[in-house]
Amino acid sequence: MSYFEEGQFALIRYEDKKFLKKLQRGHSLNVRKDVLKFDEVIGKPHGVKIGKFELFPPTLEDIILLGFERRTQIIYPKDAFYIAHKLNLNQRSRVLEFGTGSGALCAVLASVAGEVWTYERSEEFYKTALRNFKRFKIEGNVKFHNEDFLNADVPENYFDAVFVDVREPLPYLKKVHGVLKPGGVVGFLLPTANQVIQLLEALGELFGGTEVLEILQRHYKTLPERFRPEDQMVAHTAYLTFARKLTPS
Amino acid sequence: MSYFEEGQFALIRYEDKKFLKKLQRGHSLNVRKDVLKFDEVIGKPHGVKIGKFELFPPTLEDIILLGFERRTQIIYPKDAFYIAHKLNLNQRSRVLEFGTGSGALCAVLASVAGEVWTYERSEEFYKTALRNFKRFKIEGNVKFHNEDFLNADVPENYFDAVFVDVREPLPYLKKVHGVLKPGGVVGFLLPTANQVIQLLEALGELFGGTEVLEILQRHYKTLPERFRPEDQMVAHTAYLTFARKLTPS
Amino acid sequence: MSYFEEGQFALIRYEDKKFLKKLQRGHSLNVRKDVLKFDEVIGKPHGVKIGKFELFPPTLEDIILLGFERRTQIIYPKDAFYIAHKLNLNQRSRVLEFGTGSGALCAVLASVAGEVWTYERSEEFYKTALRNFKRFKIEGNVKFHNEDFLNADVPENYFDAVFVDVREPLPYLKKVHGVLKPGGVVGFLLPTANQVIQLLEALGELFGGTEVLEILQRHYKTLPERFRPEDQMVAHTAYLTFARKLTPS
Amino acid sequence: MSYFEEGQFALIRYEDKKFLKKLQRGHSLNVRKDVLKFDEVIGKPHGVKIGKFELFPPTLEDIILLGFERRTQIIYPKDAFYIAHKLNLNQRSRVLEFGTGSGALCAVLASVAGEVWTYERSEEFYKTALRNFKRFKIEGNVKFHNEDFLNADVPENYFDAVFVDVREPLPYLKKVHGVLKPGGVVGFLLPTANQVIQLLEALGELFGGTEVLEILQRHYKTLPERFRPEDQMVAHTAYLTFARKLTPS
Repeated sequence: MSYFEEGQFALIRYEDKKFLKKLQRGHSLNVRKDVLKFDEVIGKPHGVKIGKFELFPPTLEDIILLGFERRTQIIYPKDAFYIAHKLNLNQRSRVLEFGTGSGALCAVLASVAGEVWTYERSEEFYKTALRNFKRFKIEGNVKFHNEDFLNADVPENYFDAVFVDVREPLPYLKKVHGVLKPGGVVGFLLPTANQVIQLLEALGELFGGTEVLEILQRHYKTLPERFRPEDQMVAHTAYLTFARKLTPS
Repeated sequence: MSYFEEGQFALIRYEDKKFLKKLQRGHSLNVRKDVLKFDEVIGKPHGVKIGKFELFPPTLEDIILLGFERRTQIIYPKDAFYIAHKLNLNQRSRVLEFGTGSGALCAVLASVAGEVWTYERSEEFYKTALRNFKRFKIEGNVKFHNEDFLNADVPENYFDAVFVDVREPLPYLKKVHGVLKPGGVVGFLLPTANQVIQLLEALGELFGGTEVLEILQRHYKTLPERFRPEDQMVAHTAYLTFARKLTPS
Repeated sequence: MSYFEEGQFALIRYEDKKFLKKLQRGHSLNVRKDVLKFDEVIGKPHGVKIGKFELFPPTLEDIILLGFERRTQIIYPKDAFYIAHKLNLNQRSRVLEFGTGSGALCAVLASVAGEVWTYERSEEFYKTALRNFKRFKIEGNVKFHNEDFLNADVPENYFDAVFVDVREPLPYLKKVHGVLKPGGVVGFLLPTANQVIQLLEALGELFGGTEVLEILQRHYKTLPERFRPEDQMVAHTAYLTFARKLTPS
Repeated sequence: MSYFEEGQFALIRYEDKKFLKKLQRGHSLNVRKDVLKFDEVIGKPHGVKIGKFELFPPTLEDIILLGFERRTQIIYPKDAFYIAHKLNLNQRSRVLEFGTGSGALCAVLASVAGEVWTYERSEEFYKTALRNFKRFKIEGNVKFHNEDFLNADVPENYFDAVFVDVREPLPYLKKVHGVLKPGGVVGFLLPTANQVIQLLEALGELFGGTEVLEILQRHYKTLPERFRPEDQMVAHTAYLTFARKLTPS
């Protein structure tokens, strides 16, 4: 059996609300008219229900959505989950991504791949990502770099996959091509149609097998007697573009 | 550098078409007016372009969508990718799924988790999944069982996550609860609203933190001068339901 | 040329904001750091631009979304527009609807059909709809009734179409069938899947040619250099069900 | 009561199939193993059920989707219905559209507006639209012109609304502005993001209050015990852009 210990994080559900809290003695959580004292939680098994509160060990999605400090627009789990697999990662894969941002995609990549290299030129974002990983003890073989990938010293033909999350990806295409293994997969996250159009024009001779897509997530209310979609949804995060390295024969 | 060898599978792209072919000497592929002789491919680097043909090592998604023998409706990659992460899997996780079906979700789970147990009561489906894994040399620590999970001898409190893909999940709920670790995640794939309504009524005291959602994938045409969504899309595969094991304190 | 007159309503756009205001002398509108004095608007042509403010005569959609007093969840224009045509209305058609609610659908029906009868059992809603029509001078041949349609004295085989917007439509089906012309169209607006399932079970022998659908509307940002969908959208208003009256031969 | 007469069109439903047929003596319809003899239909009431066949008078949507001869991609009813109302039409409105194409939008506009002028420069399309209107006896005050709108002799400040369905709308913007009443509504149908981006850049000083949106329609299967969306849907027809005429004060 697994029990909540002092200092651990817990996902706390209360009706339709979610909280991610560090379980510290003497602290508590107030929701509507109810109080949850963390002293009562410590020592209880994972999945315990105390009054209307349900307590679970947080998943990586809970940590990213509720716990990560954000300096940038994060890559949403719906996109990050898809990206990790579309890049064809598994435990033997090496993947490189830039920019790191707040580290949300990096955390998902680290849960799948054998080796993750991540580049971020902003010192502020770089430190935020490091703090997020440290605070939530996210494991995985990740090498953080506070450097523009354009200037980075990276081995050629080394990575199974590369993911690009920068506003202007075009200057990076040649270098991305160089560090990928032949036939390796590259992905791009771009919010606007204009950016995708420019990217499609530029992928040209370097990459083939291009796909562009969006992932949409529609949540439903969970009351069985009134089953229906939620009223609002996220309509757009970004267009995802994937291609594969062409190699001159 | 990586090269195509005889007997390997290649993903072959030709304009908007995709093929997954085993590279056998003397064989060829005819598309429209063009012919690709596999003898010319063997020995060439991954990512080679021969005429209008582009050749890549297949990703797991390519293998599932184009290569898997199907006896059942498969779980689409867009759903499988999301499920694997929503179940909070990583390389230390143990996950159990039933029924195996053609093995599409199982292959994705195997690429992420440390240990996968899968149950399928139909001998025909069980053998199909085994053939699919063998044919495409899918690795990962997977234990296949040709048995109804209801009758299976499985340790209690052992799995980090369970995924349920059977038409009538209700009789399995208690056993699923038993084999999950406290706070562990369970997921369900159900095509109809009626099934979800029944499931939501039944999750009751055993599981909490319930979410129901759909994942939609919208593809775009990749011609940069005419950027627009594809004309048709898959409108529905299934509703995904996720919940977590509640533990009496 | 058409000019804004005192006492008329104007749709006022300011960047991404919209307002519907009655142009009264001495009044003004403050948005961010700008002020629009209505005295300056009166006498100006429709479509005038004053500073960052753009002023137009309001469309019916503007009136419904921004001007209507709401006591109930209104039927959104995206749905109302579709309903009016799916009911196959034109200027010779007779249509009956219940319940009236705040009158949003009624106003759209009145813009298309030759004759509209509407029923609302709540006196409060009935008066709200009347006030909305009077305030915005909505024309059309509409007969308002403050009465439950179940008790109403309505001619048989008289209406080309009927629209039903009540929580529990089943008790009304027989009467709806009676007042429709043979082959006439009936529509239903229902928020939950449970309601639709019950309706589909009940339509049985009375109605045929059943269709169920949702209308989704995805808005885009209008900055040409950053073309992309809005971040959020309405994910669900209601399921729309349409059927046609079967007639025993 | 209304009865099917010889020579009339009937919408015929058979399970999930739909047909639009002219009822001619001696003719019949074969579906799967069943035969419907039209001699048996003539004289029967609208809405009659004969075996598995259900027969209804066709709606305008039935006529457009199943009966119209198409030389061009038609504007789908889901879009046409929305356009007719977004243009703020009613029985006193004057609306102009170009190009006519096969006449699908024109037929919907004619069902709502008081006066419709339509322009089509291709003689082939012009004649197709005329044939469609004649064959299905579509009424409404429509003036067909076989002429490029750019060369047309049209009164200034005359129309409440204009709809533009041509591949390259930019050369027409000034003339559209001229024929619209002050504050009048213009709409555009464009399939690609590139076209919308160019349009947004050009609307500039002439039009304000711009909106861009898509209408999506998701159909459901109507079996009450297995309620779920259809497997496939139309993912994209076109982006709809609406704006209003700005008038120099």
